[in-house]
Amino acid sequence: MDNRKMVNDITAMDEDLAKWYTDIVKKAELVEYTSVKGCVVIRPYGYAIWENIQRILDGMFKDTGHENVCMPMFIPESLLNKEKEHVEGFAPEVAWVTHGGNDKLEERLCVRPTSETLFCEHYANIIHSYRDLPKLYNQWVSVVRWEKTTRPFLRSREFLWQEGHTIHETADEAICETERMLDIYADFCEQVLAMPVIKGRKTESDKFAGAVATYAIEAMMHDGKSLQAGTSHYFGDGFAKAFDITFSDRNNQKSYPHQTSWGVSTRLIGGIIMTHGDDNGLALPPAVAPIQAVIIPIAAHKGGVVEKARELEKTLGAAGVRVTVDDSDNSPGWKFAQYEMKGVPVRIELGPRDIEKGECVIVTRHNREKTTVRLEAAPAEVVKKLGQVQDGLYQRALQNRKRRTYDCKTTDEMIEVMDKNGDGYIRAMWCGSEQCEAAVKEKTGAGSRCIPFEQEAVSDKCVCCGKPATTMVLWGKAY
Amino acid sequence: MDNRKMVNDITAMDEDLAKWYTDIVKKAELVEYTSVKGCVVIRPYGYAIWENIQRILDGMFKDTGHENVCMPMFIPESLLNKEKEHVEGFAPEVAWVTHGGNDKLEERLCVRPTSETLFCEHYANIIHSYRDLPKLYNQWVSVVRWEKTTRPFLRSREFLWQEGHTIHETADEAICETERMLDIYADFCEQVLAMPVIKGRKTESDKFAGAVATYAIEAMMHDGKSLQAGTSHYFGDGFAKAFDITFSDRNNQKSYPHQTSWGVSTRLIGGIIMTHGDDNGLALPPAVAPIQAVIIPIAAHKGGVVEKARELEKTLGAAGVRVTVDDSDNSPGWKFAQYEMKGVPVRIELGPRDIEKGECVIVTRHNREKTTVRLEAAPAEVVKKLGQVQDGLYQRALQNRKRRTYDCKTTDEMIEVMDKNGDGYIRAMWCGSEQCEAAVKEKTGAGSRCIPFEQEAVSDKCVCCGKPATTMVLWGKAY
Repeated sequence: MDNRKMVNDITAMDEDLAKWYTDIVKKAELVEYTSVKGCVVIRPYGYAIWENIQRILDGMFKDTGHENVCMPMFIPESLLNKEKEHVEGFAPEVAWVTHGGNDKLEERLCVRPTSETLFCEHYANIIHSYRDLPKLYNQWVSVVRWEKTTRPFLRSREFLWQEGHTIHETADEAICETERMLDIYADFCEQVLAMPVIKGRKTESDKFAGAVATYAIEAMMHDGKSLQAGTSHYFGDGFAKAFDITFSDRNNQKSYPHQTSWGVSTRLIGGIIMTHGDDNGLALPPAVAPIQAVIIPIAAHKGGVVEKARELEKTLGAAGVRVTVDDSDNSPGWKFAQYEMKGVPVRIELGPRDIEKGECVIVTRHNREKTTVRLEAAPAEVVKKLGQVQDGLYQRALQNRKRRTYDCKTTDEMIEVMDKNGDGYIRAMWCGSEQCEAAVKEKTGAGSRCIPFEQEAVSDKCVCCGKPATTMVLWGKAY
Repeated sequence: MDNRKMVNDITAMDEDLAKWYTDIVKKAELVEYTSVKGCVVIRPYGYAIWENIQRILDGMFKDTGHENVCMPMFIPESLLNKEKEHVEGFAPEVAWVTHGGNDKLEERLCVRPTSETLFCEHYANIIHSYRDLPKLYNQWVSVVRWEKTTRPFLRSREFLWQEGHTIHETADEAICETERMLDIYADFCEQVLAMPVIKGRKTESDKFAGAVATYAIEAMMHDGKSLQAGTSHYFGDGFAKAFDITFSDRNNQKSYPHQTSWGVSTRLIGGIIMTHGDDNGLALPPAVAPIQAVIIPIAAHKGGVVEKARELEKTLGAAGVRVTVDDSDNSPGWKFAQYEMKGVPVRIELGPRDIEKGECVIVTRHNREKTTVRLEAAPAEVVKKLGQVQDGLYQRALQNRKRRTYDCKTTDEMIEVMDKNGDGYIRAMWCGSEQCEAAVKEKTGAGSRCIPFEQEAVSDKCVCCGKPATTMVLWGKAY
């Protein structure tokens, strides 16, 4: 009864996906709303996921020679204005501080929407010679963008992220860095978040404000829509010129350095929900799950059950598993539903009869598979199961993407495919003109997500104008 | 030559302590200024210290059952206004956001100067029953206070900190938490930062805005002034009443919960500088030093020297030491001065003659003591030395505090002592009246730092009015 009630509290995905999403973030206690629109409280369970993401990614950054710094949160208006394209892209959506205490400020300050301008000001101060290069910097902060429509994790006015900002002697080195960081993001998403991604380049119309080239990883969500999960930008020397950052090169000539920036955010948590969740709630990849295994004592009032559960908790903990025992007075059925809803990858049931037989029952969240194992074998078995869940989630998501990826030769075909199958990725050729890109979006509703690095000719003509085309574009709707 | 030049770049402490401080934060590359007054860039070396502080403190918080969360950075004006004393304390020094993009906001938002109001709003949403209590929350964020005079780390408009906010069933439990967190701060400062502190209670006039009681740890800096290194506040149920946070207690009665908050900030880095630094620069406690040992090859151009240094780096790293080799083409003398300035606790000199003899030379930063050891014994010896540095720094700071702590019976005596010896701590009795407290400050320049938990009667009369007094107060000037 309890069990059913709990699950019924979550709107079914098929019924209303947006409502399903909101139910999950609230009921799994990931976030809570506040009186400031578009700004949420990230609650302990949600923040613990972010801490795991941070810890693992930060390690990957440091292993590749990056250092953390912290820039101020405020950008003076005149500083934001220095790079023309950049300010045009961001000024319409920044929050402005106009007063400090009771005094009006001489110059308005915006709350950083991203920190290129601050890093540039800093680089101009500290870089003089090629010996000062490269600088491979990163920061973990929150940024603010005054969005009209908001949704926890996926699009909020304030969000947590990391932003890498690097500066190099040569264009080659900077391009290399841009690509390296995209690879790190892709590896992280696939191996840690179990979220398959497609690496590609954004079209000109979709570039970051001020970039020469923007690369992105795109992940397909449950409903066939695409989530831009991370971006990596190559700036050339445009920012260096706008901010007058120069250095004496190896020939003692004054030279402009080349820059990059790259970021992922708490949006990844939205991606996890929309990739792995189901009608029973969240399903967390073990690598970032705050609780990897929950032990639920059955008939806990009976002598020795809770003690045995605590014992098992210890041996699992010693095996490196993030484990907890729920010995609260809720019913086992309620607990099953509760931890399924919270996406805990593995549940372990332990009752008097199991203990008598020296066994316990392991249930994996994503497929509800049950395995009975000897208690002494439980730690090794749970570790193995966690690996299987990690892989199982990835394979399921990959299958979903494969099933919903279509090759089309004309926009009519695109419309037909989407009418029949709903959203998804459409692989179709593009001549490279911005008009065709815009026309495809207008006709089909699907925009260019990226020009995948892995190219494969679907035809030899542009899906829109029919002229010869050699570039395959991934089209789809985006979050 | 290089050596002398480097050190000469730092103003002597005796000459101008403020300038000495600024020289260190800049030249040791802890911070760099920006175009926003009072907001600095925390550079990699400074941020790495903060990361070590965070990692260790966060572990202490989690070991005592605290969970991390993340609140929004914005507080609507009406929310800030809910608790009368609190808003009076903070409104004069907050930064106000008035516009989002091109639109004027309906209600101004302040950038959090501290987050009690946000936590209260959240608690009102999520707490219903005694079963929901306690909540032991913490967040690592930056806050903004529009200070008039600023100084990197010690007082800045934006600073990084952690703020703990807990809520409890009973007053006793909350008071217990307030004291427990003060103890954790004191242990952290003494054992990790090698910074002796005095635990005590703030007088009424010096309490946090909205608190029933404020506890603090006070640390004496080089110059005899006091740094408030951390605070822990007990709120009673005042905030709960202002924000209408109620719960059904164990008797099913509506009841108000009791709250606390507590915080330390990047100010601790300022404390490290002002406690341990000297005319040669920084001196970092090994527990938070980004580099604990630097290996400097002598005559590095000679065959095998750099290779041997790298080998030693590996064995030291394996022994858990944060170690690096500087094989750049600067002179050894320049490097000695450079790493002394950056406060690296241990330097290891390794030249061809040392290698021949199978030895290396270990020099400890704070006392320049030299030890020659066998290479195979180096890892164990370095670990031992790091322990000695940690303890040596603590003892030196403790001696400084003892030497500069005086007992006085009258304000005239206070003035005389300070005239003769400069700043320091004065232990003197207080009758408890706010007038006397203010009068002492006006006459002597020394304010009440705290009422130490460890009381010892210095006399039986108030230092100011001469009436009977049983409370010993620690008086001094503050940062």
